[in-house]
Amino acid sequence: MNVTEKPLRERAGKYFLELQTRICAALEETDGKVGFVTDEWSRPGGGGGVSKVLEDGSIFEKAGVNFSKVSGILPDRIAQRLETKPGDFFATGISLVLHPVSPMIPAVHANLRYFEMDGGNSWFGGGTDLTPYYHFSEDTIHFHSVLKAACDASDPSFYPRFKKWCDEYFFVRHRGETRGVGGIFFDYLRGEPEKHFSFVQSVGDAFLDAYLPVVRKRVRMEWGEKEKLWQLTRRGRYVEFNLVYDRGTTFGLETDGRVESILMSLPPVVHWRYDVRPEKGSREEELVLILKEPREWISG
Amino acid sequence: MNVTEKPLRERAGKYFLELQTRICAALEETDGKVGFVTDEWSRPGGGGGVSKVLEDGSIFEKAGVNFSKVSGILPDRIAQRLETKPGDFFATGISLVLHPVSPMIPAVHANLRYFEMDGGNSWFGGGTDLTPYYHFSEDTIHFHSVLKAACDASDPSFYPRFKKWCDEYFFVRHRGETRGVGGIFFDYLRGEPEKHFSFVQSVGDAFLDAYLPVVRKRVRMEWGEKEKLWQLTRRGRYVEFNLVYDRGTTFGLETDGRVESILMSLPPVVHWRYDVRPEKGSREEELVLILKEPREWISG
Repeated sequence: MNVTEKPLRERAGKYFLELQTRICAALEETDGKVGFVTDEWSRPGGGGGVSKVLEDGSIFEKAGVNFSKVSGILPDRIAQRLETKPGDFFATGISLVLHPVSPMIPAVHANLRYFEMDGGNSWFGGGTDLTPYYHFSEDTIHFHSVLKAACDASDPSFYPRFKKWCDEYFFVRHRGETRGVGGIFFDYLRGEPEKHFSFVQSVGDAFLDAYLPVVRKRVRMEWGEKEKLWQLTRRGRYVEFNLVYDRGTTFGLETDGRVESILMSLPPVVHWRYDVRPEKGSREEELVLILKEPREWISG
Repeated sequence: MNVTEKPLRERAGKYFLELQTRICAALEETDGKVGFVTDEWSRPGGGGGVSKVLEDGSIFEKAGVNFSKVSGILPDRIAQRLETKPGDFFATGISLVLHPVSPMIPAVHANLRYFEMDGGNSWFGGGTDLTPYYHFSEDTIHFHSVLKAACDASDPSFYPRFKKWCDEYFFVRHRGETRGVGGIFFDYLRGEPEKHFSFVQSVGDAFLDAYLPVVRKRVRMEWGEKEKLWQLTRRGRYVEFNLVYDRGTTFGLETDGRVESILMSLPPVVHWRYDVRPEKGSREEELVLILKEPREWISG
């Protein structure tokens, strides 16, 4: 395999763009009602992206899949946050968040990215995680199992490390809860770029297999106003995490990223009522208890 | 006037608690449909508060008025943020946010607070500001005029300084817009404690006069689904400001404040649709243009 025929930045960008196309095609087919609207944009400092959004679908209330490939000069304060030196930079990635209509289908987030600084300092980062509003253990186990297999293909140490990292990263500190039931999260994968690119592709290729079976299993389940209201309230936690803690979001906003593409991740409709507490012994309480204490979903 | 009969911290706390009662009574009378629910809470480290919430009213979709009086030992990292030294602290204040049902009635926020550190370092802070979703110049002028009069009674330099501070503080940087049409904002009013307490009382006493006439003027105006959707979308900016930039919110969340009381400020229902842009020449666009560039609403 002639992996050096093109620079890694080109191959990574090409992979992410193709992955966006592939994922959007599968989501459109699954939804069946409406398609993605494509919005191409360019960045004043260099590069640009393609934002794809589907709204008011039969299955997806809002689905955003964003590709970007940007470059330019990294300002000092951003360099500090990235633990690197100011200079020319290049970044490409795909980021998606899906908010289903049904409270029985979990929301999902995935992100894969490649970053390069002049001087050869480069790394991969990313991950994917599931946010159910009603919890079904078999869904969570399925999601984690597919991710574990994708990790194991590259390095058996990856899944346990990146699963733990995910639980720590998606922690809504002021609520004392994780955002969802996790998945994997990784960042600053430096050195061995070909191994890491191969790993990132495994994760990207596994995404639809990890998520779509869960959608298909839950899509015909019944739900009513009570369940919908619970979803809208829990979506508030999603917003709280993204705006208060998420590095991708705060970094994007601080560095004058494209606001609409960054905030595409926010749910379409959200409720904040005062002090909503689930009933003892309810399915709503079951979810909260699971989010209070991350657990291992698959045995070693 | 025997102003020294009781310590300032006692008098300030008493004033804020009475103001909460007075404001809630007036809001209940204005709304006419539902009353406030009272939630008393205590803080593990010392002190506590009274949160009052009205939901699903005829005029107010959500109204939260919070009183707190807390004390204890200030952790190092909070002392740093407050530009003071670690040690015993005392803080009391009132904070309110009103989210009306009608998109024609502006949302409003007010906060008054007194902070004291051992060693005699103490200060007042606060302000109030208006967030319309459809703009009526006469409402904004009325709101600012009442606040200017309240300021002028203490110091003619206050209104121009605190009006400007408000425009700067409530700036949603990533959107390039202010949250609303401003009002006044002030912090760290040190020295001359009696003068500042008197000023803070003027502002507290003026709040209902500044806001309720606007409610009464707009409450019978007609609106439809289009206007409601615009309000729900604009409320997203309110959330973005509060969770990303607001010091009261981020400080409260970081210092393990009472989450439900802090996040009482968030609107009851919020929309985030992709890239919503007002039509050229519309009333929606008029609002956005006003928020892009703060202006003087009353002549000196």
